[in-house]
Amino acid sequence: MKINDNFYMKLAIDEAWKYQLLTYPNPAVGCVIVKDGKILAIEAHTEAGLPHAEINALKTAFLTQDSNSILKIKNSSHEIHDFLVKNHNNFFNDCEVYTTLEPCNHEGKTPSCAKLLALLKPKRVIIGSLDINKIASGGINTLMENGILVTLDILQKECDNLLLPFKSWQNKTCIFFKMAQTLNGMIDGKISSQRAKLYVHTLRDKIDLLLVGGNTVRIDKPILDTRYVKGKEPDIFIYSKNKVFPQTIPLFSIPNRKVIISDDLFKILDYKFVMVEGVYNLLDTLKDKIDFIILIVSPKIREGINTSKSLDIDFEILHENYLGDEKIIFLKRKIAK
Amino acid sequence: MKINDNFYMKLAIDEAWKYQLLTYPNPAVGCVIVKDGKILAIEAHTEAGLPHAEINALKTAFLTQDSNSILKIKNSSHEIHDFLVKNHNNFFNDCEVYTTLEPCNHEGKTPSCAKLLALLKPKRVIIGSLDINKIASGGINTLMENGILVTLDILQKECDNLLLPFKSWQNKTCIFFKMAQTLNGMIDGKISSQRAKLYVHTLRDKIDLLLVGGNTVRIDKPILDTRYVKGKEPDIFIYSKNKVFPQTIPLFSIPNRKVIISDDLFKILDYKFVMVEGVYNLLDTLKDKIDFIILIVSPKIREGINTSKSLDIDFEILHENYLGDEKIIFLKRKIAK
Repeated sequence: MKINDNFYMKLAIDEAWKYQLLTYPNPAVGCVIVKDGKILAIEAHTEAGLPHAEINALKTAFLTQDSNSILKIKNSSHEIHDFLVKNHNNFFNDCEVYTTLEPCNHEGKTPSCAKLLALLKPKRVIIGSLDINKIASGGINTLMENGILVTLDILQKECDNLLLPFKSWQNKTCIFFKMAQTLNGMIDGKISSQRAKLYVHTLRDKIDLLLVGGNTVRIDKPILDTRYVKGKEPDIFIYSKNKVFPQTIPLFSIPNRKVIISDDLFKILDYKFVMVEGVYNLLDTLKDKIDFIILIVSPKIREGINTSKSLDIDFEILHENYLGDEKIIFLKRKIAK
Repeated sequence: MKINDNFYMKLAIDEAWKYQLLTYPNPAVGCVIVKDGKILAIEAHTEAGLPHAEINALKTAFLTQDSNSILKIKNSSHEIHDFLVKNHNNFFNDCEVYTTLEPCNHEGKTPSCAKLLALLKPKRVIIGSLDINKIASGGINTLMENGILVTLDILQKECDNLLLPFKSWQNKTCIFFKMAQTLNGMIDGKISSQRAKLYVHTLRDKIDLLLVGGNTVRIDKPILDTRYVKGKEPDIFIYSKNKVFPQTIPLFSIPNRKVIISDDLFKILDYKFVMVEGVYNLLDTLKDKIDFIILIVSPKIREGINTSKSLDIDFEILHENYLGDEKIIFLKRKIAK
């Protein structure tokens, strides 16, 4: 295997995918720092409000020379930024910084990553995707104006894939479909592990709106809350022509939650980040509206219910992670050329 | 992400899986060389008769200091071995060598890797699995007797998983099941890409015997050859109670091939490396006999035929690779505890 820019960028991409969607409304970004050929840090942005990927990686890299440095207990972007500006002592001058997204140029909740890099003067910054956020962009110019060598177009397609959810919620309402199945596509019965359920509750905590089919609500009588992670409860959209549901179904009892019962999907455009929890029928109905699919696959073969409608969809696999023994696959519809 | 022994060993494991089964009758082995923290080589054993993983990695690592070295054109184990013994100039003294399997101690078709390492004197050798082959084992002792620091038990379970096919064909007949399906478990129609077919022909070239169901032979009238890779043609076992098949079916016309028609599976024990190509019915029949499953998954949803029998199998995912846009998943039956 070749050990080159692609190799290091792939490590950054894989790290970023671990926090995909969980960084909402920020993009998922990964960063790898290599000093004279030695990998010092493989980090990612993990949650909005916490440091960007580059800041996490710069901190981890700097700590490799002194793991007891006071930097260890500095956790906010501003603290890390200030510490590194004062104490870098040219540590980063022979470093190469791989980042899946152009470093931000904007002083927002966190200091500008591009301006920090310009001060720390690494030998080279290698960038996957260009920043499409007009407010934050300009990072490449800042780096180049400060004499830092910049390499572009490294695994750009893979880095762009990483940004797909972000691009979607930046521009419009991001709608994704979550489905769980066995290895052979069965969707009924108890499929998911406790760990997969925890992940779904983590997603529910991030979204604004959860869309489910009317039949599911009638049959399963779900709560659709975030009790495993004690998160915020998303509003619910029950997609149904028949508007009458018994108010005894637990999802209606969650405080501070709006429940919409409608067959007019236009109403979901009031929200920015929507998860659909459903199976094949709902997927067939919504397949032209969704941006991507999260498929949780339990590695077992079971007899059961599979697709009954005449579904015919081709996908591109964007990425895959593991949830313990189960898999999570991020899929995008493949558009016929 | 922590950059530690596990991190480097995982790189070696992933590289080795790319050649899983293709190294038959040798084990799949990966090797990573790190010099003062810098990754110099990520290599694997790729095919029986070609150099072991360690030799490939030592060659790649040595070439990083002079890519025009005459070593570049030395391809046999003996040539590389002799070159490195004469020219190493202590290059490896500050290297760490990660290998998924204990280096062989035996002078066979190739020189002993453990003895070569003992001469090159790397700082440390990190080993995943212990060698179960009695002839080749003893590598750890050779290293330690020569004052090389040895670290054991790094990702041993993952390294042992890598050896599962090897352990099986070492001790008895290795039988694996190959199946192709869509994302939702449909098995009929045109599923696999040309690249997946090429992979299946590469597997057929390695095995001794190909087992198929009688119905498949009657309906599909297959050739079951290796024409895409111009390989050797495996013998065929048609699993069928009814022994009468028209000799016009193309598989009967392949020269130098024995075709067995039987419902007595005991006969396959005359072979060492057996692939079963089939779908759910045959899987149900053979599920207690097979060592692992190779599932080729095409990322599309289709209506079609799925499991009809009452299959109920839990799996552990051993590893996954990509074949272009398709996936190949290595599965092992999970034994209930």
